Amino acid sequence: MTDRLPRAAIIDGKAIGAKIRAEVAEEAARLSGQGWTPRLVSVSVGDTAAAELYVRNQQKQAEGAGVAFEARSYPQETSLEQLIGILQGLNHDPRVNGIIIQRPLPAHIPVKALQKAVHPLKDVEGMHPASIGNIVYNDLALGPCTAVAAVEILKTLPLKIEGLDVTVIGHSEIVGKPIAFLMMGLGATVTVCHHMTRSVAMHSRAADAVFVAVGKPGLVTGDMIKPGAAVIDIGINRVDGKTVGDVDFASVAEVAGWLTPVPGGVGPVTVATLMKNAVLATRLQMEHYRDAYAKTDI
Amino acid sequence: MTDRLPRAAIIDGKAIGAKIRAEVAEEAARLSGQGWTPRLVSVSVGDTAAAELYVRNQQKQAEGAGVAFEARSYPQETSLEQLIGILQGLNHDPRVNGIIIQRPLPAHIPVKALQKAVHPLKDVEGMHPASIGNIVYNDLALGPCTAVAAVEILKTLPLKIEGLDVTVIGHSEIVGKPIAFLMMGLGATVTVCHHMTRSVAMHSRAADAVFVAVGKPGLVTGDMIKPGAAVIDIGINRVDGKTVGDVDFASVAEVAGWLTPVPGGVGPVTVATLMKNAVLATRLQMEHYRDAYAKTDI
Repeated sequence: MTDRLPRAAIIDGKAIGAKIRAEVAEEAARLSGQGWTPRLVSVSVGDTAAAELYVRNQQKQAEGAGVAFEARSYPQETSLEQLIGILQGLNHDPRVNGIIIQRPLPAHIPVKALQKAVHPLKDVEGMHPASIGNIVYNDLALGPCTAVAAVEILKTLPLKIEGLDVTVIGHSEIVGKPIAFLMMGLGATVTVCHHMTRSVAMHSRAADAVFVAVGKPGLVTGDMIKPGAAVIDIGINRVDGKTVGDVDFASVAEVAGWLTPVPGGVGPVTVATLMKNAVLATRLQMEHYRDAYAKTDI
Repeated sequence: MTDRLPRAAIIDGKAIGAKIRAEVAEEAARLSGQGWTPRLVSVSVGDTAAAELYVRNQQKQAEGAGVAFEARSYPQETSLEQLIGILQGLNHDPRVNGIIIQRPLPAHIPVKALQKAVHPLKDVEGMHPASIGNIVYNDLALGPCTAVAAVEILKTLPLKIEGLDVTVIGHSEIVGKPIAFLMMGLGATVTVCHHMTRSVAMHSRAADAVFVAVGKPGLVTGDMIKPGAAVIDIGINRVDGKTVGDVDFASVAEVAGWLTPVPGGVGPVTVATLMKNAVLATRLQMEHYRDAYAKTDI
């Protein structure tokens, strides 16, 4: 008797992330040469311990890619009005090209109010309603990093995305829905399932590619997947001290054609996408600035 | 032998539109009483003959609902810069609560550039990227009229929308995609099909409700519909001098549970929705104005 080998090819998110970061570093160097070194400001509020490791990782990745990074922390009692004032200051500061709002925020700070206060051209997290709308409109825009990362991973596979039957499990505003319209924009036929869906399995079994972003370990099992399908696992859950996704890895790996691991799948690509948004935002601001000043040359 | 009666209940769009207009008239009267009579400005550019009947109908409906309506026409040779200036003037004019950009526009005027120039609070057509993004975020927002109208029609039927399997055929930015987000926001399981979909019939036959917005007469036939399903036909096509939808009416009426006719289905509800957006926009502006001035009372 031999061990059964998993059938699915395990997708290497670290390698995809590294490739994106190398492209970002090149673009950041080009921008620096034109006097526009990309610069991110991270805003944390209150007890920052929860996000500290995450912020430090962003900082490390940014600096490795030639993107300047400044981490700011504000006390727990900072008011919403003060924070919006701080964001408006960052919006108007030409040395700041991107603003990251770290979660969790104190309970008295509604995250959407802050996301809306970030200028759309500096919205490197892709959370402003206008950023979401621009994606729906298929315009070049700063997309929500996790959703963009998940789609970028699918694009590395040898699948023709036009006409591909795709099922997205989870309809959150920052992951599930943006994945759905990014995939629609690429020509896929997309179904979005969620906790009110009668039979998720019926829809997932019909799909050539399944994205899962719910936050429930073991939610997707092998019997819910069409043999050979691509499965992109966006869940991040802590189980018995270990980080796992939403996919029951063992059973899905026996059926799927491709599968992202957790950790090491979507995560590293998400941070790389944040850096890609940083250089894109910087380029958009540079062009906007030049357009504005070109007019006075007439 | 007797004539076979169509099985589907034919949905009366005119009656639904009239009900919405009656609610709009009440709200418009309330706003008028507070000094905020809703007022729409319609902007036509160039050869306006194509849209004239349409504009006149909007005007009639507006006036019937207590919404002031001013139709403006600009010459064919008006530049994009001039039009954006005109829109900025309307944005800043407190007597204007909503702006409608009539199509078709001259070839040198990109419609999206104008739609983006309308202030989101005056965007009664629901076309600004921020309006679309707000729908994705499930915020109270001015939605694209046709999409909102189609969804409002479905909501009049005795169907539980949470968990309903819905297929949208057509993925345009102003109809198909917004319908998808609106239905997701209501808890439906939504699949979006389009010209790249391998088998539209496979998806439409699995659906409890089908929205069709493609612009191809006869695209959807009875064999593509699950018995008893609701079919909302958003197509408007001219065939042999007659206006028809995208649905093959005779065959679908024998299978569907409910069906909108064309004309007399989504159309009248769309114009009523524009008026509903006009009063909603006026209320949002009133509140915004009061919030702004309340601050100086301190």
